[in-house]
Amino acid sequence: MAKVQLVLNAGSSSLKFQVFLDDGADVPNRIYRGLFEGLGTDPHFKVKDHDGATVGEQRWAGQTAFGFEEALAYLSDWLGAHRGGHQLAAVGHRVVHGGPHYTHAVELTPAIINELDTLSPLAPLHQPKSLEPIRIIARRVPGLPQVAAFDTAFHRTQPELAQMFAIPQSMTDAGVKRYGFHGLSYAYLATQFPKVDPRLTKGRVVAAHLGNGASLCAYDASRSIATTMGFSALDGLVMGTRSGSIDPGVVFYLQREMGMSAEEAEHFLYTKCGLIGVSGLSNDMRVLRERCETDAGARRAIDLFVYRINREFGSLVAALRGIDALVFTAGIGENDAETRAEVLRAAAWAGFELDPEANRAGATRITRGTGPQAYVIPTDEEWTIVREMRQVLSHTAVA
Amino acid sequence: MAKVQLVLNAGSSSLKFQVFLDDGADVPNRIYRGLFEGLGTDPHFKVKDHDGATVGEQRWAGQTAFGFEEALAYLSDWLGAHRGGHQLAAVGHRVVHGGPHYTHAVELTPAIINELDTLSPLAPLHQPKSLEPIRIIARRVPGLPQVAAFDTAFHRTQPELAQMFAIPQSMTDAGVKRYGFHGLSYAYLATQFPKVDPRLTKGRVVAAHLGNGASLCAYDASRSIATTMGFSALDGLVMGTRSGSIDPGVVFYLQREMGMSAEEAEHFLYTKCGLIGVSGLSNDMRVLRERCETDAGARRAIDLFVYRINREFGSLVAALRGIDALVFTAGIGENDAETRAEVLRAAAWAGFELDPEANRAGATRITRGTGPQAYVIPTDEEWTIVREMRQVLSHTAVA
Repeated sequence: MAKVQLVLNAGSSSLKFQVFLDDGADVPNRIYRGLFEGLGTDPHFKVKDHDGATVGEQRWAGQTAFGFEEALAYLSDWLGAHRGGHQLAAVGHRVVHGGPHYTHAVELTPAIINELDTLSPLAPLHQPKSLEPIRIIARRVPGLPQVAAFDTAFHRTQPELAQMFAIPQSMTDAGVKRYGFHGLSYAYLATQFPKVDPRLTKGRVVAAHLGNGASLCAYDASRSIATTMGFSALDGLVMGTRSGSIDPGVVFYLQREMGMSAEEAEHFLYTKCGLIGVSGLSNDMRVLRERCETDAGARRAIDLFVYRINREFGSLVAALRGIDALVFTAGIGENDAETRAEVLRAAAWAGFELDPEANRAGATRITRGTGPQAYVIPTDEEWTIVREMRQVLSHTAVA
Repeated sequence: MAKVQLVLNAGSSSLKFQVFLDDGADVPNRIYRGLFEGLGTDPHFKVKDHDGATVGEQRWAGQTAFGFEEALAYLSDWLGAHRGGHQLAAVGHRVVHGGPHYTHAVELTPAIINELDTLSPLAPLHQPKSLEPIRIIARRVPGLPQVAAFDTAFHRTQPELAQMFAIPQSMTDAGVKRYGFHGLSYAYLATQFPKVDPRLTKGRVVAAHLGNGASLCAYDASRSIATTMGFSALDGLVMGTRSGSIDPGVVFYLQREMGMSAEEAEHFLYTKCGLIGVSGLSNDMRVLRERCETDAGARRAIDLFVYRINREFGSLVAALRGIDALVFTAGIGENDAETRAEVLRAAAWAGFELDPEANRAGATRITRGTGPQAYVIPTDEEWTIVREMRQVLSHTAVA
């Protein structure tokens, strides 16, 4: 019976998971990845092996009472019954918010779980969902080590000024700060810098995590010194359905002139804006690319997406006081050569010279010349989680 | 009896004015500047001549009914009784908001006044105050030409992408856009470019209007292509009492977790944040400079002010795709050599090289070397208003 480590990523109605062999190997050995989706409405389970072959699938049509608890029980049974059975050695969780203090992953105790719950007001839509599977597992399998890895932690190396709003110090102290997100992705990229180009490790790098959520991170010598997401996941770049940065005056206008409640305004900015709001068509860049030659809204949404990346990129170059490299990652960043080309053409002012063939071919380096270079590095947040988990648990074992 | 042109700038409880000779001279000939303040509480009138000598002063202690109407009547009498009497030929007004359409000043008719009133929801604190003196004068002196010059108009040359938020097109069309402000100041600076350095006229310039309100404007060949203020005067840089850019998630946090109403949150961001919020001490840069060696809050407020200028400057360099010059203006920009030095040192990445002696001495050019240059140009919004007014009225006379 193989010992395995489970990595969980809980969403509002989904539960993604990956399973790694607990074999002490330096490069984590992933054996399964899968997800439950439609929890609470039409639950659906699907799991693939390392080679991408579907090795399990199940539907529970209309079983609205099937939630995290049932999903975790099913997954536990499924793992016990496959490939001679798997024994869970530990569970690592992606937790959205680590607050101002957590700079690394942490092994979960009842006290720490409660502490993380006090951060829920900072991420009311996401933090409680992150904690739910943790509590279920703690109850079902009391002795099983569990670790939380935080999407905010990587940014805690930033200078104080990058983490501050211009608000009273008492509110900053109470936690109204720029936390930043996508930290598990940015941490992963930093581990890949030495392989991609050793100069990145000590250089000034901006990474563009461009998915349905999107942000930029500025690294100085592999540490985050600034990022475009702030207190919430709303700030910064244009996203699939989120506005990105928006004048606070607009929030008041939505309430005063358009009669929205604060909750409605927040829902609006999270779900009706961004690419789908501007295009009136889709939050999916692939759809917009297909239609942008004939559809003015699709073209405008793409152009605004790229324009705002260029503006925020400039702001991060200023924070870094120069630039050595730009890294693209996540769904759009890894797969949309046209977006990469448009961003790099806009960034010609900073010395980038696009290599169109390399970019179209999906090469790792997509620029040429003697100026700063751009790279594509596929991200892997679960890899960060399992690595951080191993680090935390090995320290615990030694202590 | 000399014919004069009056320029008015109405605030929430103040009315600033300047008086120019209507002599057709190319450079407007200013003969008085003054203000009423404390309107509605303890009104106080003061006026100085061209040389800065006080030539009139009056108090109406506790006369709470003394408002714009009484102020304008008093001013009219005062002008009629001084230097052999002055005859009003026209009145120019600073109007905060020209909405999406006004790209230049406009002669006011009853229809246009009503149209400007429909913009009040875009600037509820300021637009009605701008229109009040216009209506009073139209009633008291029906035939007198009046002109509105807009703080937003200069930015209407910006590309569509710079004026957009990532929100549904229908809301953009309904006026939820990035208007930008301080346009009368930026328009004035552009008129001075040829005198200061002819290369500025066709160059890529960022101007920093740093007063109690603060913003940056990017000029490409003397036209605005981007600015840091957006829909409201809250966005962008840290200001005396305003937060500048802030994650919309913070607005929802203030309402949900701190129990503020939308009105209270707006009031908070306008009046309790920025330099005074961070320092806990003052919104006045002069006070912060005096105290920053011993007071950590004062130091932090200054550092954040400069840090955010540098970040937004980088964003505008990206919009311009390069930079030829940086111009400082307004209270802090014209008078605080230390802020200018700190901003320029932070901007060394863009090639600026501070000339410390020139900067301390208050020279026009404060950099040296072969890279981009920085200048100090005192601003003059009323000069823009009177020039725009003359242009509008001469066209009207011809038509």
